[in-house]
Order: sequence, then structure tokens, then C-alpha cells
Amino acid sequence: MTAPRNRGSAPDPGHEPDHRGAPAHVPSFHEMWQDLRPLGRNPETNGYRRYAWTAADTDCRAWFQAQAESRGLAYETDRNGNQWAWLGDPTAGGAVVTGSHLDSVPDGGAFDGPLGVVSSFAALDRLRARGARPTRPLAIVNFGDEEGARFGLACVGSRLTAGQLTVEAAHALRDADGVSLPQAMERAGHDPEAIGADPERLSRIGAFIELHVEQGRALAGTEHPVGIASAIWPHGRWRFDFHGEANHAGTTRIEDRRDPMLTYANTVLAARKKARLAGALATFGKVSVEPNGVNAIPSLVRGWLDSRAADQDTLDLVVAEIEKAALERGERDGIDVAVTRESFTPVVEFEHALRDELGRILGKAGRADLPVLGTGAGHDAGILSGAIPTAMLFVRNPTGVSHSPAETAAEDDCLAGVTALADVLEGLACR
Amino acid sequence: MTAPRNRGSAPDPGHEPDHRGAPAHVPSFHEMWQDLRPLGRNPETNGYRRYAWTAADTDCRAWFQAQAESRGLAYETDRNGNQWAWLGDPTAGGAVVTGSHLDSVPDGGAFDGPLGVVSSFAALDRLRARGARPTRPLAIVNFGDEEGARFGLACVGSRLTAGQLTVEAAHALRDADGVSLPQAMERAGHDPEAIGADPERLSRIGAFIELHVEQGRALAGTEHPVGIASAIWPHGRWRFDFHGEANHAGTTRIEDRRDPMLTYANTVLAARKKARLAGALATFGKVSVEPNGVNAIPSLVRGWLDSRAADQDTLDLVVAEIEKAALERGERDGIDVAVTRESFTPVVEFEHALRDELGRILGKAGRADLPVLGTGAGHDAGILSGAIPTAMLFVRNPTGVSHSPAETAAEDDCLAGVTALADVLEGLACR
Repeated sequence: MTAPRNRGSAPDPGHEPDHRGAPAHVPSFHEMWQDLRPLGRNPETNGYRRYAWTAADTDCRAWFQAQAESRGLAYETDRNGNQWAWLGDPTAGGAVVTGSHLDSVPDGGAFDGPLGVVSSFAALDRLRARGARPTRPLAIVNFGDEEGARFGLACVGSRLTAGQLTVEAAHALRDADGVSLPQAMERAGHDPEAIGADPERLSRIGAFIELHVEQGRALAGTEHPVGIASAIWPHGRWRFDFHGEANHAGTTRIEDRRDPMLTYANTVLAARKKARLAGALATFGKVSVEPNGVNAIPSLVRGWLDSRAADQDTLDLVVAEIEKAALERGERDGIDVAVTRESFTPVVEFEHALRDELGRILGKAGRADLPVLGTGAGHDAGILSGAIPTAMLFVRNPTGVSHSPAETAAEDDCLAGVTALADVLEGLACR
Repeated sequence: MTAPRNRGSAPDPGHEPDHRGAPAHVPSFHEMWQDLRPLGRNPETNGYRRYAWTAADTDCRAWFQAQAESRGLAYETDRNGNQWAWLGDPTAGGAVVTGSHLDSVPDGGAFDGPLGVVSSFAALDRLRARGARPTRPLAIVNFGDEEGARFGLACVGSRLTAGQLTVEAAHALRDADGVSLPQAMERAGHDPEAIGADPERLSRIGAFIELHVEQGRALAGTEHPVGIASAIWPHGRWRFDFHGEANHAGTTRIEDRRDPMLTYANTVLAARKKARLAGALATFGKVSVEPNGVNAIPSLVRGWLDSRAADQDTLDLVVAEIEKAALERGERDGIDVAVTRESFTPVVEFEHALRDELGRILGKAGRADLPVLGTGAGHDAGILSGAIPTAMLFVRNPTGVSHSPAETAAEDDCLAGVTALADVLEGLACR
């Protein structure tokens, strides 16, 4: 490699480890995976419960910092709690950043998020083993609270950084126990007053590449262990509140009931039907019932709708139809229905120039004609795509199962992902 | 009153207070009601959360003991944690017992249970004010854990006493946090090893009368503030477990899903329909979802069915039809459905002789032609009716609402209930 040194003036700690003391043993992909495996795993379900700013999250963060330090990377936590590990001068500009997240949905799988972070460290190791010398700063990032499992809003870390979530709105977030996001941050040792948009940080980044396990089966039927993302479907979360009247389940005549469970049930079935007819997705995966007693007609049933479609018009139509079905049935059941959009992410078309460049780089490295796929899943890459060029690599998922302890990927496919990511980092940062 | 003294040999503490020291101020109905009102009330919902063996339950129990002591009644807790306040010798036999329960459903109302206990003390005060001299022992009872809100089984205190719940089965009961009934009892200071059938105690009782707020509107349309129970419908609780496959709500194609929420929703609607057609009741008021994440298709939805009907054949038919509908839809959705009967109480016909005697006593006291009503609600009186003569009085409920903070009864109607109960106690115990 004859490329010039970093444009920045700071020493490159990764490439001149002797200036900082030799790094300790650098864990392999397999070793990193084994280290992460027990953190936040529920022994009964074997699913992960790595929720933002909990003890399990703190453990994952400590793991990230240790990985950075064992490689002699410059470690920092940004104002929004996202973790960064830098090779080269962070202020030099034009940085190539890769990474993903370490938090999980309730009883999530091992791959969703962590595969991207582990692969990032492994790809950097591969780059160094090849003797590649970056001409641009490289960084690995762990975005906080991607899944939104605790506070109900996904991608809080990247949204804050990109200015897509105001400080006021973030401060108002509360978990199921009434703990606010600032309280949770503070308990975990992060200053909640520091949070907010971070355009200066984003301005240093030339490209962000997120590697992620595929959460569907588009690659499963092909010979390709790796694919490139085209777009993220527009998607959102809507809370449906069905207000009825609590009453005794054993004595209240059917004609005297205002039972919101009926309206909820009918809405669940309507959502599936409307989505199926439109070629969209609609899911009620979370419910909360008051008072939730066996012998009490509920006073309130809350159901959360997750809906996605390939384009905005279809999504708007499907959600409107589900809402209409809920209101009509509510009328019949004597139930007040209130619908609140809790989050929304418009369609994300990943930058065509960067996507095409990834195709060229990987083609030259022997992976021609990689599948290009859309996805219904939201990602930090989608949030950041409004501010900086972003792209995604997907690693084949043999069953398509995700958000479940059964989520899996073959080790060979994971290692193919590491190679592809190393190729991309080399192609983008070592020219 | 010229009736002979108690058959038993023990002194009658209630009628000879000077032998024990004069009792303190005896609280009126209104004062008792005010004392009880704040205990276990949730300030946000205004509903009661008086669950068995919790701090709120302990407070209610302390209230009961204080009422007994302020009246110079002999207080005791039996082996199953039921509280008793005796006027006369408990061992004399043929006792006339009245009372109800103080625990609540989640966010229950103020009247369901406590009205019976408060009215019992007030009726005893009325009897004494009249100068009535009992010829049989009288007792007031607070049965523990009538609602089953915490451990899922109703009437635990009376079931244990009547031998309708084995010690083994009781020891296996667990609350939502995994705390067992013995652990909960122990923490509340009650010896869980003491529990079990108590035939000796039951053999001392000649009649049990439970006064309860009506949990329907049969009296609301009449001029009668008080009615007499004829029967309790057979009723039970069934847990429906819908096992599907957790997956990502945003990426899993509709044809690849095994979403148990759909099967649950369809079963809720089927239950209502089957019950309506059969003139029965069927309610899903409690749900639990795993993992309960907005963007995750659930792996498991649990719904609890409460069903009741006027006769056993109708109930059997309705539950069988609901189960069939669940299994059929489960087949279509790729969902395993398992149904477990968690509790069951057969039809209770209250003893005709005692019921007729109540009618005669109240008729002589000026309440002729009292309405005689069946009910879908279970009661300790229903449990005990297999072992001893039992009867129930209902106090008019203007809206029929129960198991809700909105449950209410007019003060005049409550006082009419006290008078009727005093008349019954006098008629039965002071002959």
C-alpha cells in the first residue's frame, strides 16, 4: 500500500502501538463471540434482555471498551452515550465508520446488532493482518438503544445524534416502571444533560457501513452469504388505546358490557387482513391490559401496532384502514379508541453512489453480482442516511428468524461477512 | 328477650363487657367505612389492590382485629389465615356466622367483600342495641384470599377450610413474581405448615350468612334494597396457551409467520359469540405475552377464560366450543393450543330450608316478597355450602358495576342491608 498517511495530525494509535505500549492479546471473532454470549441472556428463554442503560447494557458497553483498548484504539463515549473506537485522528474528517448496536429486543437473538459490532472489530483486525494502511480515519461504533425495547422508541442514540429526536422528547421518555430516560442514564453513569444533536461529529464521517444479520430469507435461497441493502421500508409504531368499562366477568350481562378486549381482538385480525391484501406487514406484538384480572372485564386494553410497507402510500393506506376498523368495531362495542403514532421512519434509500461503490469493491474482491435487498427492519444506518452516506451489508440467515432466541447464522457466513466488511473498509479507507 | 343463655360454658364476653373491662368506642358503620377506605387503594386508579398476604392485606387484617377488640369479641386467626371474632363460646356448637372477605381483585371496588364484613359488625352492634340476647354463639369472619387475584385461585381460605383444596396444591400456588403461597404466608407472619382442612371448626357452625353487594342489576329495577340468593352459577377459569414462533415483526413475511396473537384474538371473539348464543358468560380479562415487544411476533400468548352459565351442561358446552374454535384457528395459524382448567366450582344451590327461613324472618320484619336471585359470582358462601347450611343477602347495586373502582351502592341501601342482616342474626341466634 503506497497511500499517504492520515490527513489528520494526531498520531495513529492503531498503527503505531509502540507509541502507546503494545496492545494485549487481540481476541478472535470466535473469542469475542464467546465473551459476549452470556451477557444479558435469560437462562429460562435463552433470549437476550440487553435493554438500554440496564446492568446488561453496562456489561456490553464494558465489553466494547475492552475490545477497543485491547487493540490500542482510541475509545470515547459521545454525548448521547454511543461508543466509539478510533483508528486514526477522529478530527481529520472523511472517516469511514462501521458498527451496529449491542442492545436487544425482549428475548432477542445473539446476532441482531452484536454480529455487526463483532464483525467490525474482526474486519479491522483482518485489515491490519493484511498490512493495509488507512489513508482516512476508521472508527467502530456501538449505537445506544437501537431496539427501543425499554423506552418504546427505536434508535434513540443515532436519532439524538442526527437531530431527529429533540432533547425535550428524549427527556420525556419513560420505561414501563415509570423511570425516565434521564434517570436511567444517570443511574448508569451518563450525564443526561449532555444529550442532543451532534452535527460536528457527523461532519467528520465520510461513510457509515453497518453489517447486520439478515432478518428475512432473501439470501437463504441463494449461494450468497452476503448481500447489499437497497432501502429500508418506511415503518412506524402506533399505540391503540381501547377504553372500556371494568366490570365483573361473572355477573355483568353481555348486553351491559363495554369490553375493550373484543375491540382489540377484532383489530388484531383486521390488521393482518388489511396488511395481507396490501402486501404490507402489520403486527400487534405488545399488549397491556388493565386491570388484567381473570374475573374482571378490562377497563383498558393497549395494543401496539408495528406496520411497514415498501412505500409510503401503501403504509399510510394500511394504517388508515386498521384505524378505521378499530373505530368501527369500537362504536359497536361501546369502546373509545385512541390511536397515537409513537414513532415513524420514512423510506430510506441508501445512497446509490456508495452502494454502487460497495458493489465494485466486493466485485473486485471476487464477490460479483451480490444480491441487493430491501428490508422492513429499521437500523441506525437508516437514521444516519439523512445526514451522511450510509450503506449496509447483510449476512445470510438460514431460517429468516430474528427477534427470537432461535435467530442464527452459519459461522462460515459470519466469517464471509467479516471478509466482505474488511474488503469494503480497505476499499474505502485505504485508497 | 327471655331466651336462655349460651349453651356453651365460656363467659360471653360481648354481653358482659364489665368482666373484661369496658370496650372502647364502638365505630359506627360510617366510621368503619372511613377507616377501611384508604387501605390498599391505588391513588392513580382509585381502585383497590388488596391482594392476599401483601402489606395492604395486613392492614385490612389489623383493621378487622381492631374492630373485634373494640367490641370485646374474642379474636382468633384460624389455621388457614381466616379471621374470626366471636360473641359467645366458639366451642358451644350451632354457631350463627356472618362475614365476607376484605381482599380485592386488581383495581377492585370498595364494596365487594368489605360491605359484608362492615355490615356484620354493624349488624352485631344493632343486635346489642336492641338488647337481643343470643342463645347460640355468633361469629364474624373474614375469609382470606377470596378473589384469588395474587395466586390465581379464588376462595383459598374457605377452600382450605372446607377441604376443597389440598395442602399440596396450595403449597404449589405461585404469584406472578414466582413467590409461593407458603413464602407469602410466612412473610406475612402466618405459619404455612398449619394450613389444611378444618372439619372441627366447620362442625361448630350451624349457619353461615354472607351479605354482599349485588354484582348485577337484578335489584336495580325494583323497590327492594335487599335480595336473597338462590344459587351460584357453575363457573371456572381456563388458561389458553397459544404457542407460536417469535420473529421480527418488520421482516418476517406473512406466509412465514406463526403468530399466536391472531389465534388468541380469534378465540376472544369466538368466546363472546358462543357465550351469547348459549345465554352464558365468557370473558378473556387477563393476557400475558412473550416477549411482548412492539417489533416482535410473540412466541407465546396466554389468555385466561372466565366462563359461567346457569347450569353445568351449558357451561360444558360453551367451554368445549371455545376450545374447539381455538384449536381450529390454531391449526390454520400454525399455533399449538393448550387449554388448562385452573379452577372450577360446580353449581351451588343454597339450602332451601335456610333460604326459606330468611324469607320468613325478613317477612316478619316488614320485608315481604324479597327478590330471590341467582348470580354468576363465586363466593366463600358457595364453597362452604357443601359442608354447612349457607345463605346470602345481596344489597342493591344501582349500576351493576363491580370489580371496578366505579362499583357503588347507596348509603341507605347499605344500612337497609345492615338492618336485614341484624334481623336475620336475631331470628336465627336469639330464638
